[in-house]
Amino acid sequence: MAQTNQCIDGKRLWDSLMGFAEIGATPKGGVRRLTLTDVDKRGRDRFRAECEALGLTVRLDAIGNMFARRPGRNPTRPPVLFGSHLDSQPSGGKFDGALGVLGGLEVMRSLNDLGIVTEAPLELINWTDEEGSRFGHSLMGSGVWAGVFTLDKAYSLTDTEGVSVETALDGIGYRGTDPAAPFPADAYFELHIEQGPFLEREGRQIGIVTGAQAQVWYDAVTVGQDSHAGTTPPSTRKDALVCAARIVDLVDRMMRARGEDGRGTVGQLLVFPNSRNVVPGEVRFSVEFRHPAMAEVDVLHADFPPAAQAIAAACGVRLELTALFKIPAQPFDPVCVDLVRQGAAKLGYSAREIVSGAAHDAVYVARHVPTAMIFTPCKDGLSHNEAESIAPEEAEAGCQVLFEAVVARANQIS
Amino acid sequence: MAQTNQCIDGKRLWDSLMGFAEIGATPKGGVRRLTLTDVDKRGRDRFRAECEALGLTVRLDAIGNMFARRPGRNPTRPPVLFGSHLDSQPSGGKFDGALGVLGGLEVMRSLNDLGIVTEAPLELINWTDEEGSRFGHSLMGSGVWAGVFTLDKAYSLTDTEGVSVETALDGIGYRGTDPAAPFPADAYFELHIEQGPFLEREGRQIGIVTGAQAQVWYDAVTVGQDSHAGTTPPSTRKDALVCAARIVDLVDRMMRARGEDGRGTVGQLLVFPNSRNVVPGEVRFSVEFRHPAMAEVDVLHADFPPAAQAIAAACGVRLELTALFKIPAQPFDPVCVDLVRQGAAKLGYSAREIVSGAAHDAVYVARHVPTAMIFTPCKDGLSHNEAESIAPEEAEAGCQVLFEAVVARANQIS
Repeated sequence: MAQTNQCIDGKRLWDSLMGFAEIGATPKGGVRRLTLTDVDKRGRDRFRAECEALGLTVRLDAIGNMFARRPGRNPTRPPVLFGSHLDSQPSGGKFDGALGVLGGLEVMRSLNDLGIVTEAPLELINWTDEEGSRFGHSLMGSGVWAGVFTLDKAYSLTDTEGVSVETALDGIGYRGTDPAAPFPADAYFELHIEQGPFLEREGRQIGIVTGAQAQVWYDAVTVGQDSHAGTTPPSTRKDALVCAARIVDLVDRMMRARGEDGRGTVGQLLVFPNSRNVVPGEVRFSVEFRHPAMAEVDVLHADFPPAAQAIAAACGVRLELTALFKIPAQPFDPVCVDLVRQGAAKLGYSAREIVSGAAHDAVYVARHVPTAMIFTPCKDGLSHNEAESIAPEEAEAGCQVLFEAVVARANQIS
Repeated sequence: MAQTNQCIDGKRLWDSLMGFAEIGATPKGGVRRLTLTDVDKRGRDRFRAECEALGLTVRLDAIGNMFARRPGRNPTRPPVLFGSHLDSQPSGGKFDGALGVLGGLEVMRSLNDLGIVTEAPLELINWTDEEGSRFGHSLMGSGVWAGVFTLDKAYSLTDTEGVSVETALDGIGYRGTDPAAPFPADAYFELHIEQGPFLEREGRQIGIVTGAQAQVWYDAVTVGQDSHAGTTPPSTRKDALVCAARIVDLVDRMMRARGEDGRGTVGQLLVFPNSRNVVPGEVRFSVEFRHPAMAEVDVLHADFPPAAQAIAAACGVRLELTALFKIPAQPFDPVCVDLVRQGAAKLGYSAREIVSGAAHDAVYVARHVPTAMIFTPCKDGLSHNEAESIAPEEAEAGCQVLFEAVVARANQIS
C-alpha cells in the first residue's frame, strides 16, 4: 500500500489493463493491435468513450494522435501532458504502451474521485503508431508531432499490402483536423514498462528514467550470385548468406565489446532465392546499434561500415549499407525527472535511475516539452513478446508515481 | 561439325529448346515451371504430342513419370532408357533438365529421319519433380520409381498452400496407372548441363560422368528467446540468429577445409519474428554437405552436429538438428560410361571424366539399371538461375554423344 491519502485504485487499473488486452488478444496471452487497423480502431473507440465518460474533451490531430483534456483552475496555463501508445507489435504484450495510456486514465479517474482540480489543465495522449511494425517507421505520431519528419512523408508510407498511412487513417476515421505540431505545454510524463531486466534483477519498484539511448539504424543488402549448391566449388562461390552471417556475428561482437550498456541487433533478415540447394545470391537485413553514450554510437557508426565492407570484400560479395537514421542520446528534463524521484521517495518505493534502452514517444516530445519517464519492472525483462508480464502491484506503483508527478507539476506555483 | 554421317540436327534441337523455354518463361530470360502446376501440364502436353507425332507410344506411371517408347527390331530385349526432367526451379534456367528430355526427343527424330531401327527398344523418360522446389523433396519421380521412398509418402507431401502431390497429379491429369517401379531395362543415359564451372574452365565439350557425389542433408532450428532489441543487455540475450549465423559460417569453413571437392551450403533460412527491433527468438534453416568421397561425407556427418551444438551451447541457444537423408556416392556403370567415352572420342570432342556435384534422376535409376551421364558445359557454371546459358554447339555435341551411346548400346549383340 502506498504511503499517501490520495491513492489511485490499483484494482481498477488492473481490471482496465486486462479488459483492454481483450482487444486483439492472441491465443498465447499477448495482443496483436497493429496501428490503424480495425483492432486499433476498437481500442481507440473504447479509449475515447472512457475519456468522455470522465468528462474529458477528446481531440484528434492530423496524424491521429488523441488528446483527452481535463480543465485546470487556470485555463491560461499550458497543460501538463502524459500518456503513451495503444498500438502493439505483431505478437506483442499486454503492457507495452497500454500501461502508460490506461495508467493515465486511472490518474484522471482518481482525480475525479478525489475531487481534485489542478491549477494547470491536464492532457492524456494516445500517440499513433509507436511500434512501427505495420508501416516500418516507429514513433510515427510523436515524430510528426515533434517535426522529426513531415506529415506528407508519414501519409505516404505504405504497409506490405500497399495501404498508405493516409488511407488507413481515413479508413478507421481517425484523421483529425488539428495540426500535428507542438503546442504550448508545461511538461510531459510517460509511464512505461522497462522492457529490460534491471529493475526486476535489483528488486526495484520504480525506474527514474533520466534519458534515452543514442541509436543508429541501417539497411543492409549483400549481393553475391545464386548458383547450384552441389556443383559450385568453394573457389567460385559468391554466397550472400555466408557474408551476411559474418556481419551478424560482427554486430554481436561490436555490441559485446561495449559491455552491458551496448546494444547491437540484426532483427530482420531475408534470403533470396531461399531454396535449399541454391547458394544464396542476395540477403536483405537490418542492423541497429544503441548505447546511452552518444560518443559510443558515433564510434560504432564510424567503425561498423568499414568492418562490414571488409567482410564483404573477403567473401567476394557486394555490400550495400544504408544508414537510416541516427538518434542522439536524449537526456530528460532534470526538474521533471526530480518530480518522479520525489514521488517515488514520498511513497517509499525502492527506485533507481535508469537510461531507456528503447525509443519512446517521450524521446521526441522531449525536444519541445520538459519530459520525464517512469519505468515499472517487467517479468524477465521480456517485451515485444506475448509472454510480456508485470504484477498488479507493479502497475499500481508506477501509476501512483505518475499521479504524484503530474499533480505536483500541475499545481506548481508558476 | 561432328565427324559422323549420322548426325542429329543441332539447329532443330536448339529451336526445340528455345520453343519449350517459352512455357513458363520469366522476364529475366529464365523459366518458372514448377512441378505439377498448369505450366508443367502445358510442358507435358506438348512433350506428349511431339512424342506421338514421332510414332512413339507414351505411358504414365502412378507418380506421373512419362515413358515414350520406340520399338526395336527385337521386342524381347529390355529397352535402352534415356531422358531427364521438364520441371524447373522457381527462378530456373532453360536447360536444366530440358536439355536431357528434348535432346532425347531429337535423338528419336534423327533415328526416324535416318530410318534406323535399333535392336533393342528405346524409351525416352520425363521424370516427375526432379527439383523438389514445390513439395520440398527432390528426385521425387525417380525416387519413387527406384523404391527409395514409397508412393504413399510422395502422395502425402504438400506444397506451401497445403496442396498434396496426389491432388496436384490428379489436378493436371497426369496420375498414370502403371506401377511406379523398376522394370527390366538394359541401360539408362542422361544428358544434362554440368551446372558447374569445370568443363568451361578447361575448354572441354563433353563431361564423361563417372558417378555422383555423396550427400548429407539436415534441417536445423535454433531456439532462443525473442526480446526487445533496445533493452535486452548482452548478458541476457538468447539470439537465435547470432547462433544460426555462426553455424552458417561453420558450414562454409567445413566445406573449404575439404578443398575444391567440398560442398557445404545453407540455402534456406527463415527468422522469427523477423522484426527490426526484436532479438530473433527462432531461426529455421537447411544445411547440406556433398563430396565425391563417401568417407568425407561420413566425417562431415560425424563432426558437424557436435560442432554446431557447441556453438549453440556457447550462445545459450537450443539447436534442434535433424538429418533428413544421407545419399552414398553413386558410381555409374563402367560399360555405359565407356560408351559415352567412345562416343565423344569417335566424334573428336574434347572430353574429361567428371563426378556429378548435383543429384540427378540417374543417381536413383543407377540403383537398378546400368547408368551413365553426359555433361555439357554451361556459361560460368551457373545453374538454378535465370541467367543459366549454354551455346547451341554445346547442346548439339552433347546430344550427338547421347545419340552415339544410345544407338551403340541398343545395337550391342546381347
